[in-house]
Amino acid sequence: DFIHALHEVVPAFGASTDNLERCRTNGIVDCGERHAHIHRRTMLLAEQVKVSKGSPLITCLLEGPSGSGKTAMAATIGIESDFPYVKIISAETMIGLSESSKCAQIVKVFEDAYKSPLSIIILDDIERLIEYVAIGPRFSNLISQTLLVLLKRLPPIGKNVLVIGTTSELDFLKMIGLRDAFSVTYHIPTLDAEDARKVLQHLRVFSDDDIDSAAEALKHLPIKTIYMVVEMAAQGELGGEAEAIYSGQKKIQINHFFDC
Amino acid sequence: DFIHALHEVVPAFGASTDNLERCRTNGIVDCGERHAHIHRRTMLLAEQVKVSKGSPLITCLLEGPSGSGKTAMAATIGIESDFPYVKIISAETMIGLSESSKCAQIVKVFEDAYKSPLSIIILDDIERLIEYVAIGPRFSNLISQTLLVLLKRLPPIGKNVLVIGTTSELDFLKMIGLRDAFSVTYHIPTLDAEDARKVLQHLRVFSDDDIDSAAEALKHLPIKTIYMVVEMAAQGELGGEAEAIYSGQKKIQINHFFDC
Amino acid sequence: DFIHALHEVVPAFGASTDNLERCRTNGIVDCGERHAHIHRRTMLLAEQVKVSKGSPLITCLLEGPSGSGKTAMAATIGIESDFPYVKIISAETMIGLSESSKCAQIVKVFEDAYKSPLSIIILDDIERLIEYVAIGPRFSNLISQTLLVLLKRLPPIGKNVLVIGTTSELDFLKMIGLRDAFSVTYHIPTLDAEDARKVLQHLRVFSDDDIDSAAEALKHLPIKTIYMVVEMAAQGELGGEAEAIYSGQKKIQINHFFDC
Amino acid sequence: DFIHALHEVVPAFGASTDNLERCRTNGIVDCGERHAHIHRRTMLLAEQVKVSKGSPLITCLLEGPSGSGKTAMAATIGIESDFPYVKIISAETMIGLSESSKCAQIVKVFEDAYKSPLSIIILDDIERLIEYVAIGPRFSNLISQTLLVLLKRLPPIGKNVLVIGTTSELDFLKMIGLRDAFSVTYHIPTLDAEDARKVLQHLRVFSDDDIDSAAEALKHLPIKTIYMVVEMAAQGELGGEAEAIYSGQKKIQINHFFDC
Amino acid sequence: DFIHALHEVVPAFGASTDNLERCRTNGIVDCGERHAHIHRRTMLLAEQVKVSKGSPLITCLLEGPSGSGKTAMAATIGIESDFPYVKIISAETMIGLSESSKCAQIVKVFEDAYKSPLSIIILDDIERLIEYVAIGPRFSNLISQTLLVLLKRLPPIGKNVLVIGTTSELDFLKMIGLRDAFSVTYHIPTLDAEDARKVLQHLRVFSDDDIDSAAEALKHLPIKTIYMVVEMAAQGELGGEAEAIYSGQKKIQINHFFDC
Amino acid sequence: DFIHALHEVVPAFGASTDNLERCRTNGIVDCGERHAHIHRRTMLLAEQVKVSKGSPLITCLLEGPSGSGKTAMAATIGIESDFPYVKIISAETMIGLSESSKCAQIVKVFEDAYKSPLSIIILDDIERLIEYVAIGPRFSNLISQTLLVLLKRLPPIGKNVLVIGTTSELDFLKMIGLRDAFSVTYHIPTLDAEDARKVLQHLRVFSDDDIDSAAEALKHLPIKTIYMVVEMAAQGELGGEAEAIYSGQKKIQINHFFDC
Ligand SMILES: Nc1ncnc2c1ncn2[C@@H]1O[C@H](COP(=O)(O)OP(=O)(O)OP(=O)(O)O)[C@@H](O)[C@H]1O
Ligand SMILES: Nc1ncnc2c1ncn2[C@@H]1O[C@H](COP(=O)(O)OP(=O)(O)OP(=O)(O)O)[C@@H](O)[C@H]1O
Ligand SMILES: Nc1ncnc2c1ncn2[C@@H]1O[C@H](COP(=O)(O)OP(=O)(O)OP(=O)(O)O)[C@@H](O)[C@H]1O
Ligand SMILES: Nc1ncnc2c1ncn2[C@@H]1O[C@H](COP(=O)(O)OP(=O)(O)OP(=O)(O)O)[C@@H](O)[C@H]1O
Ligand SMILES: Nc1ncnc2c1ncn2[C@@H]1O[C@H](COP(=O)(O)OP(=O)(O)OP(=O)(O)O)[C@@H](O)[C@H]1O
Ligand SMILES: Nc1ncnc2c1ncn2[C@@H]1O[C@H](COP(=O)(O)OP(=O)(O)OP(=O)(O)O)[C@@H](O)[C@H]1O
Ligand SMILES: [Mg+2]
Ligand SMILES: [Mg+2]
Ligand SMILES: [Mg+2]
Ligand SMILES: [Mg+2]
Ligand SMILES: [Mg+2]
Ligand SMILES: [Mg+2]
Repeated sequence: DFIHALHEVVPAFGASTDNLERCRTNGIVDCGERHAHIHRRTMLLAEQVKVSKGSPLITCLLEGPSGSGKTAMAATIGIESDFPYVKIISAETMIGLSESSKCAQIVKVFEDAYKSPLSIIILDDIERLIEYVAIGPRFSNLISQTLLVLLKRLPPIGKNVLVIGTTSELDFLKMIGLRDAFSVTYHIPTLDAEDARKVLQHLRVFSDDDIDSAAEALKHLPIKTIYMVVEMAAQGELGGEAEAIYSGQKKIQINHFFDC
Repeated sequence: DFIHALHEVVPAFGASTDNLERCRTNGIVDCGERHAHIHRRTMLLAEQVKVSKGSPLITCLLEGPSGSGKTAMAATIGIESDFPYVKIISAETMIGLSESSKCAQIVKVFEDAYKSPLSIIILDDIERLIEYVAIGPRFSNLISQTLLVLLKRLPPIGKNVLVIGTTSELDFLKMIGLRDAFSVTYHIPTLDAEDARKVLQHLRVFSDDDIDSAAEALKHLPIKTIYMVVEMAAQGELGGEAEAIYSGQKKIQINHFFDC
Repeated sequence: DFIHALHEVVPAFGASTDNLERCRTNGIVDCGERHAHIHRRTMLLAEQVKVSKGSPLITCLLEGPSGSGKTAMAATIGIESDFPYVKIISAETMIGLSESSKCAQIVKVFEDAYKSPLSIIILDDIERLIEYVAIGPRFSNLISQTLLVLLKRLPPIGKNVLVIGTTSELDFLKMIGLRDAFSVTYHIPTLDAEDARKVLQHLRVFSDDDIDSAAEALKHLPIKTIYMVVEMAAQGELGGEAEAIYSGQKKIQINHFFDC
Repeated sequence: DFIHALHEVVPAFGASTDNLERCRTNGIVDCGERHAHIHRRTMLLAEQVKVSKGSPLITCLLEGPSGSGKTAMAATIGIESDFPYVKIISAETMIGLSESSKCAQIVKVFEDAYKSPLSIIILDDIERLIEYVAIGPRFSNLISQTLLVLLKRLPPIGKNVLVIGTTSELDFLKMIGLRDAFSVTYHIPTLDAEDARKVLQHLRVFSDDDIDSAAEALKHLPIKTIYMVVEMAAQGELGGEAEAIYSGQKKIQINHFFDC
Repeated sequence: DFIHALHEVVPAFGASTDNLERCRTNGIVDCGERHAHIHRRTMLLAEQVKVSKGSPLITCLLEGPSGSGKTAMAATIGIESDFPYVKIISAETMIGLSESSKCAQIVKVFEDAYKSPLSIIILDDIERLIEYVAIGPRFSNLISQTLLVLLKRLPPIGKNVLVIGTTSELDFLKMIGLRDAFSVTYHIPTLDAEDARKVLQHLRVFSDDDIDSAAEALKHLPIKTIYMVVEMAAQGELGGEAEAIYSGQKKIQINHFFDC
Repeated sequence: DFIHALHEVVPAFGASTDNLERCRTNGIVDCGERHAHIHRRTMLLAEQVKVSKGSPLITCLLEGPSGSGKTAMAATIGIESDFPYVKIISAETMIGLSESSKCAQIVKVFEDAYKSPLSIIILDDIERLIEYVAIGPRFSNLISQTLLVLLKRLPPIGKNVLVIGTTSELDFLKMIGLRDAFSVTYHIPTLDAEDARKVLQHLRVFSDDDIDSAAEALKHLPIKTIYMVVEMAAQGELGGEAEAIYSGQKKIQINHFFDC
């Protein structure tokens, strides 16, 4: 039924930047040198794929805590590269499908990529793609094996592919041999106080006096969590203050902020 | 057959407050500041969802011992909010269905919610939805994966969703990564003596002299158990006294009460 | 196929006291205050269900060693109550059925009960219903989940149900959360020497001189075992004496009795 | 498909003593008081079933090492009783059948027995019936549950049944609760030197001088093994002597015997 | 589908000595007294089967390290006996078949044997027949149970069968009870230096001076490995010398031999 | 369905050197004596198969870390031999197939080989063929058993086969008995500093001054990794330098190289 499933998949060719934009709901702001460094290195890999003779396939894994910005980073590379085929493979579009249907969808994306001279494939949240759960642990070996083979299989001659994976479960990926199947791995960190301050300055919801202590309170958190905490604080203790805050009329009460 | 099951689900749109009322068989009484605090915070989340720009999806987990009032609290939020779509997903309506049918039902509720500008979805007794049993442990990974993805998937642009989960098995939810999939988690406690006294005063089945020692005896119990124990005591040692007690003609014998 | 199985189940409405009588092959004799106490308490629960406003569903678990009289006790409650619907759910009538057919049968009984204003449902030998075996342990999670939900699901408004479960495997039921799904649990004990003497006096197969030492030898045994041992002894060493014993012509030889 | 399988089973009514005779390939010889005692007790059970009022179902387990004579003993009871229905349930006639077909066959035998006023059912080599293997351990829970229920289910009124089980794996049967499902259990032992001498005297293949040392060498062996060892020795060191030995012309060389 | 598979098996009657000859690719040479002793004992069993009255079924297990000559020995017994039905059951002819098809094939061979007055059935590489792998361990319980029953089931009256099994995994066969299902077990050893010298003398590829040190180097190896090592050495260091060696023109260089 | 799958496989006869060439994307360069030695020994095995009388089947396992050159070596033997049938069996061409379809494909290749007087079959990345994953561990026992049998089954008379396996998971192959199913095993090592220097000299991307320190930095890496690291370094810190480097106009900056 895998073969069958394979044929049912509707071909979806071309780089749909719409989907990629959706991966950055809070936009991209400057959040420190460590994020910027990984961004530069990954862009270099995209260039290497373009000019390489000996490596038609380069694979790169972005790993780090949940909310640290892995998916947003991968989407950004996909958007900034000028590759004709950019595709994100995500569990969101495969809810409830059988393992073999999921495999077929994944294989389909690679087969489509092989038709383009240059492609980027994003394997988003690999642990979710392989239905990982820590108890057991359980996961889909069918999908794992498929990824293990696809991450090694050379594209046809003249076609070059960059695969970017993201994961919050590096240890698990190590154990099943998926980490070592990638050529390079980069760690996306949480923010330090300095990084957090940069993000808060951009958001303009704290008074200048409060921004340092707020940044201090938010250090070691992933960027996505920082956005969520700030938004909760912006509601105010009794609700209803969000509009005034975001329009710049008010600032967040630092004491209420510490309660959140 | 998941796809198939998905189509068979009859669409069920709109907030059925009838079902929600059934979740509070003993009504809602004042049972202390800790319950009240969680109630206020969760109502604030409902408001945040309404006005939010950056967080179209907010997810909140209510956890605590069996009978502590989680489902009643979630139902109350659903009723008190003025959201056009409020839906409770419960194992009760899915007895005996296959894992994939259950998934289809759950996905259907989310898909329906995505059609409403504002929605609340209650995932009641998550451990029961995923067919958890402590031995093994065993559970449905298919349903777990579905929840993990649904709790992260953004609704379409312009649609905002608040998901409220309830569970008595927080440790298990941690282990399978479901706890961390929620934005915030609140603990619903058992009652302390002071809380219990408030509930007993409302019930008016003890004489004023007995109420303190009864409240003391009931402390550290969940509110649902307190209702059950009081009702058993109201039967009297030989049965048949319930009507007299509830009509206020008699009071519960404190000695008999201690036997229950 | 669960849905399918559900429809195939032939509706079986009404209290079949025939079946209940078969659960007490040796009748009911006075076997001590502890059995009597549990009998009274459980009858009180039946009354509570009848008059209750806040608890349309009360659930009670009888647990104790094999042969201690749990099934006979539950059947007796069912017979003595004047409830219009009394039904026993037992593995005996479901031999060889698939898990989902068994679920359908169980659900069917509850659905039928919901049509009667007052019902008693006996879940006999719960460990057998869920196909428990100590090695592993193995059991049917499908049936366990079904019971977990049914023991919490409220009947329709105006319908009241008492569920009585029996089990010899309390520890296992604890581990899978089924014990805590019952409102109350009573322990049915083996007989002490005094209890055993009462039973022997009723049977009239020992001479007055022997009855005390026989009762002493039988203490700490469940009542069912006592009946079996006495019957074996009544055969005599060489067989053929049973008729004489039971007609009162002879008494059991106490020495031969100690051999059994 | 269990239901289906149930109907396919061809009814097989009546006591087929042919099959029972085949269970005693080496006949029945006097092999000591311990075997004789169990034989008498089991015959008493058959009588008890016949006259019992309170116990329409009696169940008895014969356990002991492989080859100790359990099957031969059970077959002998079946032959010597004058019961109209005697049936042996054995894995030999169910090779390669699915678990549910085996269940159907077993249930069928019980259903047939319920049509006869008096029946004996032999469950031969229970560990083989439930497909037990020590690694894991693995076994058929479907068949185990079926046996657990059948060993407790009362026959219709007026029908009495004696079930005799045999097993070499008592510990395993304990663990899955099957041992305790039997009313009584008897241990069939290996032979001691005295028992072995009786068997050898019957076989007449040793000279009178050698018989004691041969019996001594064979002690603690099951009777079936003793038959096999004697037969191997009767071949002689170079083969070809068997006929002479069994016709009484020669005796077994005691030295060659010790080599076997 | 087992039943189905059973009918599909094409009957294959008669002793195909061709297949048996293929089991001895390197012929049979004298490799010491221990091999010869087992050969004699197994031939005696074949004779015992022929004349036995009380043992229509004798079963014998040959076990030892891989390459020690078990299959060749079993095939030799089959060839040297004058039995009308000799059949080898081997995993080679059942690659990729389902467990139930394999069972059907095995049962078919036994059923065919039951039609012949005298038969030998070789169960070659039992661990492979039951799909054993050490991790887990995993194996086919369906096939194991089939063998356990077939090794005990008596042929019809007047038909006598000798079953010879081979295995390199004695410990595993012990654990699943298959070892004890055989009447006798013989250990086929690796060669000692003296045995190896006999084999080398037969091969004539070493000079008389080298033969002792070569035999010493080969001791404790199974005979099959000895053949492989000698053949590799016969190639010479640069290849191309094999013909000269085997035609007797050259001898193997003892130094090159030690490199292999 | 295995049988079915077997017939669907399109026969693919003949040595397709195209596929074999693709296994050496970076060509073959001199990388030290240890690689060369294994190359010579494996070529000798090919010759032995050609002339052998007693060993129509020789099997050889190449094992070592990922990227050490196992597949390239096996492909090279296949190309350099003048065998009429050379075939590589790889997971890449079987993505998403069921276990039984994969078995059928594998068996098909062996059946085709049996039609040629001389064949080489490459089992590439055996752990991937049997769907191995370290957690559990899990793997396909169906495919493992198939390989275990195929690695022992003799080809028809007059047909000779050399099987070359490759693996990075020797320990796992030992545990499931696959390592011992091969006649010989060779370890393909990572490069030492001397080996690495040879490779770098061939690539001509470092200045003569830097080559030693570069080789030192690359020691203990597999050859494939060395190629990847050199290519990344050739991009330069800011990208865009690759062409100049490979055309010989520039050399790699040794400092930038150490960053990679
Ligand atoms: N420089 C930045 N890099 C990454 N994300 C940024 C940056 N600036 C802002 N963001 C915002 O931070 C959020 C990062 O969330 P994202 O979903 O990428 O995290 P994640 O690591 O993929 O989390 P998860 O492990 O849960 O998938 C996004 O909303 C994104 O718009
Ligand atoms: N302030 C209150 N908050 C919550 N429940 C209340 C309150 N006052 C009264 N109750 C009653 O207490 C009971 C709480 O039971 P509920 O089913 O909500 O508990 P639960 O925590 O969901 O238990 P479970 O874990 O078994 O699902 C309800 O009958 C409800 O009517
Ligand atoms: N007062 C009594 N209470 C219970 N049983 C009694 C009483 N007097 C006599 N009996 C007899 O004792 C026996 C009790 O057996 P019963 O089957 O109820 O035990 P059980 O606990 O359900 O055993 P199991 O765990 O094996 O199902 C019945 O035959 C019943 O007729
Ligand atoms: N007094 C006796 N009791 C039992 N068996 C006897 C007796 N005398 C002789 N025999 C012979 O001993 C053999 C006993 O073997 P039997 O098959 O009954 O053993 P078993 O305990 O059932 O073994 P297994 O556990 O392998 O099934 C039979 O061949 C039987 O004819
Ligand atoms: N006396 C002998 N006994 C057995 N084998 C011999 C003898 N002389 C020569 N041989 C040769 O030795 C080889 C023994 O290999 P065989 O396949 O029988 O071993 P095995 O123990 O069955 O190995 P495996 O466990 O791998 O199946 C055969 O090629 C056979 O021709
Ligand atoms: N002498 C050589 N031997 C082997 N490979 C070489 C040699 N010279 C250059 N190479 C190149 O080195 C690379 C070796 O990679 P190869 O795929 O063979 O490694 P592998 O051990 O099979 O890795 P994996 O375990 O990941 O399958 C190939 O690109 C090959 O062209
Ligand atoms: Mg992400
Ligand atoms: Mg609840
Ligand atoms: Mg009972
Ligand atoms: Mg037996
Ligand atoms: Mg062999
Ligand atoms: Mg390789």
